[in-house]
Amino acid sequence: MSRDDNPTACVLLIGNELLSGKTQDANLKFIGGELAKLGIRLEEARVIRDDMDAIVAHVNECRAKYTYVFTTGGIGPTHDDITAEAIAKAFDVDLVVDPEAVVRLKHGGRELNEARLKMARVPAGAELIDNPISAAPGFRIENVFVLAGIPPIAHAMFAAAEPMLRRGRTIHARGVDVFLREGDFALDLERIARAHPEVEIGSYPFHRDGKYGASLVVRGTDEVRVEAVLQEIIAAMTALGGAPERTRL
Amino acid sequence: MSRDDNPTACVLLIGNELLSGKTQDANLKFIGGELAKLGIRLEEARVIRDDMDAIVAHVNECRAKYTYVFTTGGIGPTHDDITAEAIAKAFDVDLVVDPEAVVRLKHGGRELNEARLKMARVPAGAELIDNPISAAPGFRIENVFVLAGIPPIAHAMFAAAEPMLRRGRTIHARGVDVFLREGDFALDLERIARAHPEVEIGSYPFHRDGKYGASLVVRGTDEVRVEAVLQEIIAAMTALGGAPERTRL
Repeated sequence: MSRDDNPTACVLLIGNELLSGKTQDANLKFIGGELAKLGIRLEEARVIRDDMDAIVAHVNECRAKYTYVFTTGGIGPTHDDITAEAIAKAFDVDLVVDPEAVVRLKHGGRELNEARLKMARVPAGAELIDNPISAAPGFRIENVFVLAGIPPIAHAMFAAAEPMLRRGRTIHARGVDVFLREGDFALDLERIARAHPEVEIGSYPFHRDGKYGASLVVRGTDEVRVEAVLQEIIAAMTALGGAPERTRL
Repeated sequence: MSRDDNPTACVLLIGNELLSGKTQDANLKFIGGELAKLGIRLEEARVIRDDMDAIVAHVNECRAKYTYVFTTGGIGPTHDDITAEAIAKAFDVDLVVDPEAVVRLKHGGRELNEARLKMARVPAGAELIDNPISAAPGFRIENVFVLAGIPPIAHAMFAAAEPMLRRGRTIHARGVDVFLREGDFALDLERIARAHPEVEIGSYPFHRDGKYGASLVVRGTDEVRVEAVLQEIIAAMTALGGAPERTRL
Protein backbone atom coordinates (compact mmCIF):
# COMPACT_ATOMS: atom_id res chain seq x y z
CA MET A 1 0.00 0.00 0.00
CA SER A 2 1.37 3.40 -0.86
CA ARG A 3 2.17 5.50 2.18
CA ASP A 4 -0.46 7.92 3.36
CA ASP A 5 -0.27 10.47 6.16
CA ASN A 6 -2.24 8.27 8.56
CA PRO A 7 -0.96 8.13 12.14
CA THR A 8 1.12 5.05 12.96
CA ALA A 9 1.17 2.77 15.97
CA CYS A 10 3.02 0.00 17.75
CA VAL A 11 1.59 -2.41 20.34
CA LEU A 12 3.77 -3.73 23.17
CA LEU A 13 2.32 -6.88 24.75
CA ILE A 14 4.01 -7.19 28.13
CA GLY A 15 4.10 -10.46 30.06
CA ASN A 16 6.35 -13.50 30.53
CA GLU A 17 3.30 -15.75 30.19
CA LEU A 18 2.91 -14.73 26.53
CA LEU A 19 6.45 -15.99 25.77
CA SER A 20 6.50 -19.15 27.88
CA GLY A 21 3.76 -21.02 26.03
CA LYS A 22 1.31 -20.55 28.89
CA THR A 23 -1.01 -17.89 27.54
CA GLN A 24 -2.43 -17.12 24.11
CA ASP A 25 -2.49 -13.38 23.46
CA ALA A 26 -6.00 -12.12 22.83
CA ASN A 27 -5.38 -8.39 22.51
CA LEU A 28 -3.36 -7.81 19.35
CA LYS A 29 -6.00 -8.89 16.84
CA PHE A 30 -8.61 -6.73 18.59
CA ILE A 31 -6.41 -3.62 18.79
CA GLY A 32 -5.23 -4.10 15.19
CA GLY A 33 -8.79 -4.21 13.91
CA GLU A 34 -9.85 -1.15 15.92
CA LEU A 35 -6.84 0.86 14.76
CA ALA A 36 -7.61 0.04 11.11
CA LYS A 37 -11.13 1.44 11.59
CA LEU A 38 -9.64 4.62 13.07
CA GLY A 39 -7.25 4.97 10.15
CA ILE A 40 -4.21 4.35 12.33
CA ARG A 41 -1.60 2.14 10.72
CA LEU A 42 -0.33 -0.56 13.08
CA GLU A 43 3.28 -0.94 11.96
CA GLU A 44 4.46 -3.55 14.42
CA ALA A 45 3.87 -5.28 17.73
CA ARG A 46 6.34 -6.66 20.22
CA VAL A 47 5.85 -9.25 22.92
CA ILE A 48 8.24 -8.55 25.76
CA ARG A 49 9.03 -9.83 29.24
CA ASP A 50 8.19 -8.29 32.62
CA ASP A 51 11.71 -6.91 32.74
CA MET A 52 12.43 -3.31 33.67
CA ASP A 53 15.29 -2.69 31.26
CA ALA A 54 13.49 -4.39 28.37
CA ILE A 55 10.27 -2.42 28.86
CA VAL A 56 12.13 0.90 29.18
CA ALA A 57 14.20 0.25 26.04
CA HIS A 58 11.27 -0.87 23.86
CA VAL A 59 8.98 1.96 25.03
CA ASN A 60 11.62 4.58 24.33
CA GLU A 61 12.46 3.16 20.93
CA CYS A 62 8.85 2.82 19.84
CA ARG A 63 7.46 6.10 21.20
CA ALA A 64 10.10 7.95 19.17
CA LYS A 65 9.31 5.94 16.05
CA TYR A 66 5.49 5.88 15.95
CA THR A 67 2.61 8.29 16.50
CA TYR A 68 1.17 6.06 19.24
CA VAL A 69 2.32 3.20 21.44
CA PHE A 70 -0.18 0.94 23.22
CA THR A 71 0.99 -1.38 25.97
CA THR A 72 -1.00 -4.22 27.51
CA GLY A 73 -0.25 -6.02 30.76
CA GLY A 74 1.66 -5.56 33.98
CA ILE A 75 -0.46 -2.94 35.75
CA GLY A 76 -1.94 -5.13 38.51
CA PRO A 77 -1.00 -5.28 42.20
CA THR A 78 1.49 -8.19 42.21
CA HIS A 79 5.29 -8.09 42.26
CA ASP A 80 5.56 -8.96 38.57
CA ASP A 81 3.41 -5.95 37.58
CA ILE A 82 6.13 -3.42 36.78
CA THR A 83 4.79 -1.63 33.71
CA ALA A 84 3.81 1.66 35.43
CA GLU A 85 7.20 1.93 37.09
CA ALA A 86 8.96 1.10 33.81
CA ILE A 87 6.99 3.75 31.90
CA ALA A 88 7.88 6.37 34.53
CA LYS A 89 11.50 5.38 34.13
CA ALA A 90 11.26 5.55 30.33
CA PHE A 91 9.94 9.13 30.60
CA ASP A 92 12.35 9.94 33.45
CA VAL A 93 9.54 11.13 35.74
CA ASP A 94 8.45 10.05 39.22
CA LEU A 95 5.81 7.46 39.87
CA VAL A 96 3.15 9.29 41.92
CA VAL A 97 -0.08 8.37 43.66
CA ASP A 98 -2.95 9.78 41.59
CA PRO A 99 -5.74 11.03 43.91
CA GLU A 100 -8.47 10.36 41.37
CA ALA A 101 -7.21 6.80 40.91
CA VAL A 102 -7.38 6.34 44.70
CA VAL A 103 -11.01 7.48 44.66
CA ARG A 104 -11.84 5.03 41.89
CA LEU A 105 -10.13 2.14 43.69
CA LYS A 106 -12.00 3.01 46.91
CA HIS A 107 -15.24 2.79 44.97
CA GLY A 108 -14.11 -0.55 43.49
CA GLY A 109 -15.60 -2.32 46.50
CA ARG A 110 -12.43 -4.02 47.78
CA GLU A 111 -10.29 -3.02 50.75
CA LEU A 112 -7.74 -0.43 49.57
CA ASN A 113 -4.66 -2.11 51.04
CA GLU A 114 -1.01 -1.47 50.26
CA ALA A 115 -1.01 -3.87 47.31
CA ARG A 116 -4.08 -2.27 45.69
CA LEU A 117 -2.72 1.22 46.29
CA LYS A 118 0.08 0.29 43.88
CA MET A 119 -2.55 0.45 41.12
CA ALA A 120 -3.11 4.15 41.86
CA ARG A 121 0.51 4.98 41.08
CA VAL A 122 1.11 6.48 37.65
CA PRO A 123 3.96 8.43 36.06
CA ALA A 124 3.80 12.14 36.94
CA GLY A 125 1.83 13.97 34.27
CA ALA A 126 -0.15 10.95 33.12
CA GLU A 127 -3.87 11.12 32.33
CA LEU A 128 -6.08 8.26 33.56
CA ILE A 129 -7.85 5.89 31.18
CA ASP A 130 -11.18 4.61 32.48
CA ASN A 131 -11.62 1.00 33.47
CA PRO A 132 -15.38 0.35 33.53
CA ILE A 133 -14.86 -3.27 34.59
CA SER A 134 -12.59 -3.42 37.62
CA ALA A 135 -11.93 0.23 38.63
CA ALA A 136 -8.09 0.23 38.49
CA PRO A 137 -7.37 2.67 35.66
CA GLY A 138 -4.94 2.62 32.77
CA PHE A 139 -3.15 5.81 31.81
CA ARG A 140 -1.76 7.86 28.96
CA ILE A 141 1.51 9.75 29.09
CA GLU A 142 2.32 11.72 25.95
CA ASN A 143 1.82 9.26 23.07
CA VAL A 144 1.98 6.10 25.18
CA PHE A 145 -1.28 4.40 26.24
CA VAL A 146 -0.98 1.88 29.06
CA LEU A 147 -3.76 -0.72 29.16
CA ALA A 148 -4.47 -3.79 31.28
CA GLY A 149 -3.61 -7.26 30.00
CA ILE A 150 -6.87 -9.09 30.74
CA PRO A 151 -8.63 -8.97 27.37
CA PRO A 152 -12.10 -7.62 28.32
CA ILE A 153 -10.45 -4.88 30.40
CA ALA A 154 -7.86 -4.11 27.72
CA HIS A 155 -10.65 -3.77 25.14
CA ALA A 156 -12.76 -1.52 27.38
CA MET A 157 -9.74 0.68 28.10
CA PHE A 158 -8.97 0.94 24.39
CA ALA A 159 -12.52 2.16 23.81
CA ALA A 160 -12.08 4.70 26.61
CA ALA A 161 -8.82 5.91 25.04
CA GLU A 162 -10.23 6.24 21.52
CA PRO A 163 -11.35 9.89 21.87
CA MET A 164 -7.72 10.83 22.68
CA LEU A 165 -6.52 9.54 19.28
CA ARG A 166 -6.07 11.50 16.07
CA ARG A 167 -7.83 9.59 13.34
CA GLY A 168 -6.59 8.98 9.84
CA ARG A 169 -8.44 7.81 6.79
CA THR A 170 -10.17 4.51 7.55
CA ILE A 171 -8.34 1.52 6.10
CA HIS A 172 -10.97 -0.45 4.19
CA ALA A 173 -10.59 -4.17 3.62
CA ARG A 174 -12.48 -6.37 1.15
CA GLY A 175 -11.90 -10.04 0.69
CA VAL A 176 -12.70 -13.08 -1.34
CA ASP A 177 -11.94 -16.77 -0.81
CA VAL A 178 -10.78 -18.75 -3.82
CA PHE A 179 -10.48 -22.50 -4.09
CA LEU A 180 -7.17 -22.58 -5.92
CA ARG A 181 -3.62 -23.25 -4.75
CA GLU A 182 -1.53 -20.11 -4.40
CA GLY A 183 0.99 -21.46 -6.91
CA ASP A 184 -1.75 -21.57 -9.55
CA PHE A 185 -2.78 -17.92 -9.31
CA ALA A 186 0.30 -16.15 -7.92
CA LEU A 187 1.43 -14.63 -11.22
CA ASP A 188 -2.05 -13.30 -12.07
CA LEU A 189 -2.37 -11.80 -8.61
CA GLU A 190 1.10 -10.26 -8.84
CA ARG A 191 0.18 -8.61 -12.15
CA ILE A 192 -2.87 -7.02 -10.49
CA ALA A 193 -0.84 -5.97 -7.42
CA ARG A 194 1.80 -4.30 -9.60
CA ALA A 195 -0.90 -2.40 -11.51
CA HIS A 196 -2.43 -1.06 -8.27
CA PRO A 197 0.22 0.20 -5.88
CA GLU A 198 -2.48 2.37 -4.25
CA VAL A 199 -3.83 -0.69 -2.45
CA GLU A 200 -2.26 -3.56 -0.52
CA ILE A 201 -3.15 -7.07 -1.66
CA GLY A 202 -2.61 -10.06 0.61
CA SER A 203 -2.95 -13.78 -0.04
CA TYR A 204 -3.52 -16.06 2.97
CA PRO A 205 -3.64 -19.76 2.16
CA PHE A 206 -5.99 -22.07 4.04
CA HIS A 207 -6.97 -25.72 4.20
CA ARG A 208 -10.61 -26.06 5.16
CA ASP A 209 -13.03 -28.98 5.01
CA GLY A 210 -10.48 -30.91 2.99
CA LYS A 211 -10.15 -28.16 0.36
CA TYR A 212 -7.14 -25.93 -0.29
CA GLY A 213 -7.67 -22.29 -1.03
CA ALA A 214 -6.64 -18.78 -0.16
CA SER A 215 -8.23 -15.66 1.26
CA LEU A 216 -7.38 -12.71 -0.94
CA VAL A 217 -7.67 -9.35 0.77
CA VAL A 218 -7.47 -5.84 -0.65
CA ARG A 219 -6.80 -2.97 1.77
CA GLY A 220 -6.60 0.74 1.25
CA THR A 221 -7.98 4.10 2.29
CA ASP A 222 -9.95 4.66 -0.96
CA GLU A 223 -12.98 2.41 -0.64
CA VAL A 224 -13.93 2.73 -4.32
CA ARG A 225 -10.46 1.69 -5.47
CA VAL A 226 -10.40 -1.20 -2.99
CA GLU A 227 -13.69 -2.52 -4.38
CA ALA A 228 -12.60 -2.03 -7.99
CA VAL A 229 -9.38 -3.97 -7.44
CA LEU A 230 -11.29 -6.74 -5.68
CA GLN A 231 -13.58 -7.00 -8.72
CA GLU A 232 -10.54 -7.32 -10.95
CA ILE A 233 -9.23 -10.12 -8.73
CA ILE A 234 -12.60 -11.87 -8.76
CA ALA A 235 -12.66 -11.75 -12.57
CA ALA A 236 -9.13 -13.17 -12.81
CA MET A 237 -9.84 -15.94 -10.29
CA THR A 238 -13.12 -16.84 -12.00
CA ALA A 239 -11.19 -17.21 -15.28
CA LEU A 240 -8.87 -19.67 -13.48
CA GLY A 241 -11.85 -21.66 -12.15
CA GLY A 242 -11.37 -20.50 -8.57
CA ALA A 243 -15.06 -20.16 -7.69
CA PRO A 244 -14.51 -16.97 -5.65
CA GLU A 245 -16.71 -16.37 -2.62
CA ARG A 246 -16.93 -12.89 -1.08
CA THR A 247 -16.01 -12.84 2.58
CA ARG A 248 -16.87 -10.48 5.40
CA LEU A 249 -13.81 -9.02 7.09
CA MET B 1 14.49 -15.71 37.41
CA SER B 2 18.21 -15.45 37.85
CA ARG B 3 20.08 -15.54 34.58
CA ASP B 4 21.43 -18.88 33.48
CA ASP B 5 23.59 -19.68 30.48
CA ASN B 6 20.66 -21.05 28.49
CA PRO B 7 20.53 -20.06 24.82
CA THR B 8 18.17 -17.18 24.01
CA ALA B 9 15.71 -16.66 21.18
CA CYS B 10 13.45 -14.19 19.43
CA VAL B 11 10.47 -14.99 17.21
CA LEU B 12 9.56 -12.74 14.27
CA LEU B 13 5.98 -13.25 13.12
CA ILE B 14 5.83 -11.82 9.61
CA GLY B 15 2.56 -10.84 7.93
CA ASN B 16 0.31 -7.80 7.48
CA GLU B 17 -2.72 -9.96 8.33
CA LEU B 18 -1.47 -10.35 11.92
CA LEU B 19 -1.50 -6.56 12.39
CA SER B 20 -4.70 -5.68 10.52
CA GLY B 21 -7.11 -7.52 12.80
CA LYS B 22 -7.72 -10.21 10.19
CA THR B 23 -5.77 -13.15 11.59
CA GLN B 24 -5.11 -14.47 15.08
CA ASP B 25 -1.51 -15.65 15.42
CA ALA B 26 -1.31 -19.32 16.33
CA ASN B 27 2.44 -19.88 16.29
CA LEU B 28 3.94 -17.88 19.16
CA LYS B 29 2.38 -19.85 22.01
CA PHE B 30 3.45 -23.14 20.40
CA ILE B 31 7.03 -22.05 19.72
CA GLY B 32 7.34 -20.49 23.20
CA GLY B 33 6.27 -23.74 24.85
CA GLU B 34 8.63 -25.85 22.74
CA LEU B 35 11.59 -23.55 23.40
CA ALA B 36 10.97 -23.74 27.16
CA LYS B 37 11.15 -27.54 26.94
CA LEU B 38 14.46 -27.24 25.08
CA GLY B 39 15.83 -24.88 27.70
CA ILE B 40 15.96 -21.97 25.25
CA ARG B 41 14.85 -18.69 26.75
CA LEU B 42 12.41 -16.81 24.48
CA GLU B 43 13.27 -13.19 25.23
CA GLU B 44 10.89 -11.46 22.86
CA ALA B 45 8.72 -11.73 19.78
CA ARG B 46 7.90 -9.16 17.15
CA VAL B 47 5.01 -9.03 14.73
CA ILE B 48 6.09 -7.20 11.60
CA ARG B 49 4.76 -6.30 8.17
CA ASP B 50 5.57 -7.86 4.80
CA ASP B 51 7.94 -4.96 4.20
CA MET B 52 11.46 -5.48 2.89
CA ASP B 53 13.18 -2.78 4.93
CA ALA B 54 11.35 -3.72 8.13
CA ILE B 55 12.18 -7.43 7.84
CA VAL B 56 15.85 -6.74 7.06
CA ALA B 57 16.20 -4.34 9.99
CA HIS B 58 14.48 -6.58 12.56
CA VAL B 59 16.33 -9.73 11.42
CA ASN B 60 19.69 -8.00 11.62
CA GLU B 61 18.98 -6.48 15.02
CA CYS B 62 17.68 -9.72 16.52
CA ARG B 63 20.21 -12.16 15.08
CA ALA B 64 22.97 -10.08 16.66
CA LYS B 65 21.16 -9.96 19.98
CA TYR B 66 19.96 -13.56 20.51
CA THR B 67 21.30 -17.09 20.09
CA TYR B 68 18.46 -17.95 17.70
CA VAL B 69 15.87 -16.15 15.60
CA PHE B 70 12.79 -17.95 14.28
CA THR B 71 10.65 -16.32 11.61
CA THR B 72 7.18 -17.43 10.53
CA GLY B 73 5.36 -16.41 7.37
CA GLY B 74 6.05 -14.99 3.94
CA ILE B 75 7.68 -17.97 2.21
CA GLY B 76 4.86 -18.89 -0.18
CA PRO B 77 4.61 -18.26 -3.93
CA THR B 78 2.63 -14.98 -4.00
CA HIS B 79 3.87 -11.41 -4.47
CA ASP B 80 3.52 -10.60 -0.75
CA ASP B 81 5.82 -13.49 0.20
CA ILE B 82 9.12 -11.66 0.51
CA THR B 83 10.72 -13.26 3.56
CA ALA B 84 13.36 -15.35 1.72
CA GLU B 85 14.46 -12.34 -0.32
CA ALA B 86 14.58 -10.17 2.80
CA ILE B 87 16.69 -12.72 4.70
CA ALA B 88 19.15 -12.90 1.78
CA LYS B 89 19.35 -9.12 1.86
CA ALA B 90 19.85 -9.11 5.63
CA PHE B 91 22.82 -11.50 5.24
CA ASP B 92 24.00 -9.71 2.09
CA VAL B 93 24.03 -12.91 0.03
CA ASP B 94 22.31 -13.88 -3.22
CA LEU B 95 18.97 -15.63 -3.37
CA VAL B 96 19.68 -18.86 -5.24
CA VAL B 97 17.64 -21.79 -6.56
CA ASP B 98 18.32 -24.79 -4.30
CA PRO B 99 18.42 -28.00 -6.40
CA GLU B 100 17.21 -30.17 -3.52
CA ALA B 101 14.26 -27.82 -2.92
CA VAL B 102 13.40 -28.14 -6.62
CA VAL B 103 13.38 -31.94 -6.29
CA ARG B 104 11.09 -31.73 -3.25
CA LEU B 105 8.69 -29.34 -4.98
CA LYS B 106 8.59 -31.64 -8.04
CA HIS B 107 7.60 -34.49 -5.75
CA GLY B 108 4.96 -32.25 -4.16
CA GLY B 109 2.50 -33.34 -6.82
CA ARG B 110 1.72 -29.92 -8.33
CA GLU B 111 3.00 -28.42 -11.58
CA LEU B 112 6.35 -26.73 -10.88
CA ASN B 113 5.53 -23.42 -12.54
CA GLU B 114 7.35 -20.09 -12.23
CA ALA B 115 5.39 -19.11 -9.10
CA ARG B 116 6.13 -22.38 -7.29
CA LEU B 117 9.79 -22.24 -8.32
CA LYS B 118 10.03 -19.11 -6.16
CA MET B 119 9.65 -21.42 -3.15
CA ALA B 120 12.91 -23.18 -4.11
CA ARG B 121 14.89 -19.96 -3.79
CA VAL B 122 16.86 -19.59 -0.57
CA PRO B 123 19.73 -17.37 0.55
CA ALA B 124 23.11 -18.77 -0.61
CA GLY B 125 24.54 -20.98 2.11
CA ALA B 126 21.18 -21.82 3.69
CA GLU B 127 20.32 -25.33 4.86
CA LEU B 128 16.81 -26.63 4.09
CA ILE B 129 14.27 -27.37 6.85
CA ASP B 130 11.90 -30.23 6.03
CA ASN B 131 8.24 -29.58 5.37
CA PRO B 132 6.49 -32.94 5.77
CA ILE B 133 3.09 -31.41 4.95
CA SER B 134 3.33 -29.44 1.72
CA ALA B 135 6.88 -30.06 0.35
CA ALA B 136 8.05 -26.40 0.08
CA PRO B 137 10.89 -26.26 2.61
CA GLY B 138 11.89 -23.71 5.20
CA PHE B 139 15.55 -22.95 5.72
CA ARG B 140 18.23 -22.04 8.22
CA ILE B 141 21.01 -19.57 7.61
CA GLU B 142 23.46 -19.18 10.49
CA ASN B 143 21.28 -18.63 13.59
CA VAL B 144 18.10 -17.67 11.71
CA PHE B 145 15.39 -20.30 11.14
CA VAL B 146 12.79 -19.45 8.51
CA LEU B 147 9.48 -21.27 8.92
CA ALA B 148 6.12 -21.15 7.13
CA GLY B 149 3.24 -19.15 8.59
CA ILE B 150 0.45 -21.72 8.35
CA PRO B 151 0.39 -23.15 11.88
CA PRO B 152 0.52 -26.93 11.21
CA ILE B 153 3.36 -26.39 8.73
CA ALA B 154 5.18 -23.98 11.07
CA HIS B 155 4.93 -26.50 13.89
CA ALA B 156 6.17 -29.40 11.74
CA MET B 157 9.09 -27.29 10.51
CA PHE B 158 9.97 -26.34 14.08
CA ALA B 159 10.11 -30.04 14.95
CA ALA B 160 12.35 -30.64 11.93
CA ALA B 161 14.66 -27.81 13.04
CA GLU B 162 14.93 -28.98 16.65
CA PRO B 163 17.98 -31.21 16.15
CA MET B 164 19.89 -28.14 14.87
CA LEU B 165 19.42 -26.31 18.20
CA ARG B 166 21.75 -26.25 21.17
CA ARG B 167 19.70 -27.12 24.22
CA GLY B 168 19.88 -25.47 27.61
CA ARG B 169 18.54 -26.65 30.93
CA THR B 170 14.81 -27.30 30.61
CA ILE B 171 12.68 -24.53 32.09
CA HIS B 172 10.23 -26.26 34.43
CA ALA B 173 6.89 -24.69 35.24
CA ARG B 174 4.51 -25.62 38.05
CA GLY B 175 1.24 -23.86 38.73
CA VAL B 176 -1.65 -23.50 41.06
CA ASP B 177 -4.98 -21.68 40.75
CA VAL B 178 -6.16 -19.73 43.77
CA PHE B 179 -9.59 -18.24 44.32
CA LEU B 180 -8.46 -14.93 45.78
CA ARG B 181 -8.16 -11.43 44.32
CA GLU B 182 -4.58 -10.47 43.47
CA GLY B 183 -4.81 -7.47 45.80
CA ASP B 184 -5.46 -9.82 48.72
CA PHE B 185 -2.34 -11.97 48.30
CA ALA B 186 0.11 -9.71 46.46
CA LEU B 187 2.25 -8.88 49.50
CA ASP B 188 2.54 -12.52 50.59
CA LEU B 189 3.49 -13.57 47.09
CA GLU B 190 6.02 -10.76 46.82
CA ARG B 191 7.66 -11.90 50.06
CA ILE B 192 8.05 -15.39 48.61
CA ALA B 193 9.33 -14.04 45.29
CA ARG B 194 11.98 -11.91 47.04
CA ALA B 195 13.12 -14.91 49.07
CA HIS B 196 13.58 -17.03 45.93
CA PRO B 197 15.34 -15.09 43.18
CA GLU B 198 16.41 -18.46 41.70
CA VAL B 199 12.89 -18.92 40.27
CA GLU B 200 10.46 -16.69 38.42
CA ILE B 201 6.97 -16.33 39.91
CA GLY B 202 4.08 -15.04 37.84
CA SER B 203 0.53 -14.16 38.80
CA TYR B 204 -2.13 -14.22 36.08
CA PRO B 205 -5.58 -13.10 37.19
CA PHE B 206 -8.70 -14.73 35.75
CA HIS B 207 -12.47 -14.51 36.00
CA ARG B 208 -14.00 -17.93 35.47
CA ASP B 209 -17.49 -19.30 36.14
CA GLY B 210 -18.30 -16.11 38.01
CA LYS B 211 -15.32 -16.46 40.34
CA TYR B 212 -12.22 -14.28 40.47
CA GLY B 213 -8.86 -15.85 40.98
CA ALA B 214 -5.31 -16.06 39.72
CA SER B 215 -3.01 -18.66 38.23
CA LEU B 216 0.28 -18.60 40.09
CA VAL B 217 3.17 -20.07 38.17
CA VAL B 218 6.72 -20.87 39.27
CA ARG B 219 9.38 -21.32 36.58
CA GLY B 220 13.00 -22.27 36.77
CA THR B 221 15.64 -24.71 35.65
CA ASP B 222 15.92 -26.50 39.02
CA GLU B 223 12.83 -28.70 39.20
CA VAL B 224 13.25 -29.42 42.92
CA ARG B 225 13.45 -25.71 43.79
CA VAL B 226 10.47 -24.95 41.55
CA GLU B 227 8.36 -27.54 43.37
CA ALA B 228 9.54 -26.38 46.80
CA VAL B 229 8.63 -22.76 46.07
CA LEU B 230 5.24 -23.83 44.74
CA GLN B 231 4.61 -25.71 48.01
CA GLU B 232 5.49 -22.54 49.93
CA ILE B 233 3.00 -20.58 47.80
CA ILE B 234 0.31 -23.23 48.33
CA ALA B 235 0.81 -23.02 52.09
CA ALA B 236 0.57 -19.21 52.08
CA MET B 237 -2.54 -19.20 49.89
CA THR B 238 -4.19 -21.90 52.00
CA ALA B 239 -3.62 -19.70 55.07
CA LEU B 240 -5.42 -16.88 53.22
CA GLY B 241 -8.35 -19.17 52.40
CA GLY B 242 -7.48 -19.35 48.68
CA ALA B 243 -8.39 -23.03 48.19
CA PRO B 244 -5.44 -23.67 45.86
CA GLU B 245 -5.87 -26.18 43.03
CA ARG B 246 -2.80 -27.59 41.25
CA THR B 247 -2.85 -27.01 37.52
CA ARG B 248 -1.18 -28.78 34.63
CA LEU B 249 0.95 -26.46 32.49
